[in-house]
Amino acid sequence: MRFVYFLSDQTGVTAETLGHSLITQFNGHDFQQVTLPFIDNEDKAKEAVLRINSSIKDNSLKPIIFSTFISEELREIVKEVNGLHLDIFDVFLEPLEKELKQKSTKKSGLAHGMSNANTYMKRIEATNYALANDDGGVTRHYDKADIIIIGISRSGKTPTCLYMALQYGIYAANFPLTEDDLENSAIPDTLKPYKKKLFGLTISAERLRQIRKERRAIGTYASIKQVSYEIREAEKIYIKKGIKFIDTTELSIEEISGKIIEQTGVQRRFRP
Amino acid sequence: MRFVYFLSDQTGVTAETLGHSLITQFNGHDFQQVTLPFIDNEDKAKEAVLRINSSIKDNSLKPIIFSTFISEELREIVKEVNGLHLDIFDVFLEPLEKELKQKSTKKSGLAHGMSNANTYMKRIEATNYALANDDGGVTRHYDKADIIIIGISRSGKTPTCLYMALQYGIYAANFPLTEDDLENSAIPDTLKPYKKKLFGLTISAERLRQIRKERRAIGTYASIKQVSYEIREAEKIYIKKGIKFIDTTELSIEEISGKIIEQTGVQRRFRP
Repeated sequence: MRFVYFLSDQTGVTAETLGHSLITQFNGHDFQQVTLPFIDNEDKAKEAVLRINSSIKDNSLKPIIFSTFISEELREIVKEVNGLHLDIFDVFLEPLEKELKQKSTKKSGLAHGMSNANTYMKRIEATNYALANDDGGVTRHYDKADIIIIGISRSGKTPTCLYMALQYGIYAANFPLTEDDLENSAIPDTLKPYKKKLFGLTISAERLRQIRKERRAIGTYASIKQVSYEIREAEKIYIKKGIKFIDTTELSIEEISGKIIEQTGVQRRFRP
Repeated sequence: MRFVYFLSDQTGVTAETLGHSLITQFNGHDFQQVTLPFIDNEDKAKEAVLRINSSIKDNSLKPIIFSTFISEELREIVKEVNGLHLDIFDVFLEPLEKELKQKSTKKSGLAHGMSNANTYMKRIEATNYALANDDGGVTRHYDKADIIIIGISRSGKTPTCLYMALQYGIYAANFPLTEDDLENSAIPDTLKPYKKKLFGLTISAERLRQIRKERRAIGTYASIKQVSYEIREAEKIYIKKGIKFIDTTELSIEEISGKIIEQTGVQRRFRP
């Protein structure tokens, strides 16, 4: 077992994201991940160093520390830690300062902070939009949609829309393809005026069966015959109507969202 | 105007997160941000380099390129770009390999990919949980909740719960404090058995007025008198009942979630 710490004077999201990307490149380790966020004064920084150092006693392996300290003073304190310490600002700020011919502002809370109330509102509005327009839901304001995700039940529509809303402020609605749509090989009438905004999801039968079984094991809902039929008919609609679609079977939510944005050219309203 | 590119053989989420953290440390620049994800072969890498180099013609300022190429070959191709190129794996992989006494697997798609179907299911389940238990919603499976966020309308409950679910797989329910609760200075009966799981949100009157006005400008809903009353009474309940709470006025969703996790000790089921 080896401790991996994510330290920050902010939320720690950047340290987590970076560190996680890196440690997943190494197999066979039992990494124990701990986030210590909001270390925004000297006392807290010293406390974090003590905590990490004392964890070594019971654990012969050196801890790995990913950090994003904007404050140089705090970064210096954390450097005293007994472990492999990798700080992002330490490494990347200098070349950027040189290129931009400017010293960094060293202010915390700019990236994931509420520095921009406007961004906050955009996120909330996009999230509310995704919720109100989930699963063919109540408002059906498809004129406002940046994109409308369609697909059969449990193909990944809802988490994808929520992710795009929260992460990028994209107005993402979603609409289920029902038995009727599949039988008639047609897109729902409600969506016909918005054909250009449609994007389809598909999935492998075996994977869908697994996912549906978790939800409702009884009846035909999760039967291999039913899921195969639905997938086949949904794909027929996409092809017939010229709707772009992707197979979500092997993809994470980040990958599904990334590919949709790439293939449609939908614009992000902001970045994480 | 200066182009900032986020390049990756994966989703580009790590490059975006890191790059965004860094460039927000520099004021007064007109950064044009472009993500080029899924650059997973030599042709795509060369195409990206061409695209970036050709963008320089109309733009005298050198582009800045943040990248996360796991493939060393692709990283080498991108190094040819005419701009400031900062690759995360280039810098951090070597010290990690040395410390872990192991070569990295150089496999892409491990961090934000579907390498772990189990993690995918956890995310989906947590997101479904948050949706079904949003705003005092349908299922009310509070026995399963890791945390139950309470607060008055528009104090930030829903996006916070969705973020914790999507990002960390936390089962986060939320419940609104109604006029009745505020008048009686009591927590809703439904929640009484789960007092230990409750966490309160509060907000400044001026900020809440703004947020509510966006939603419904007419009536008393967004009046300063009404919002002040609701905030005061909600905080009274938190204090009287010994419920931890935070003020979300100056906080981003990442910060709200981070602070809740920090103050409650709720465990993340995974990391981004």
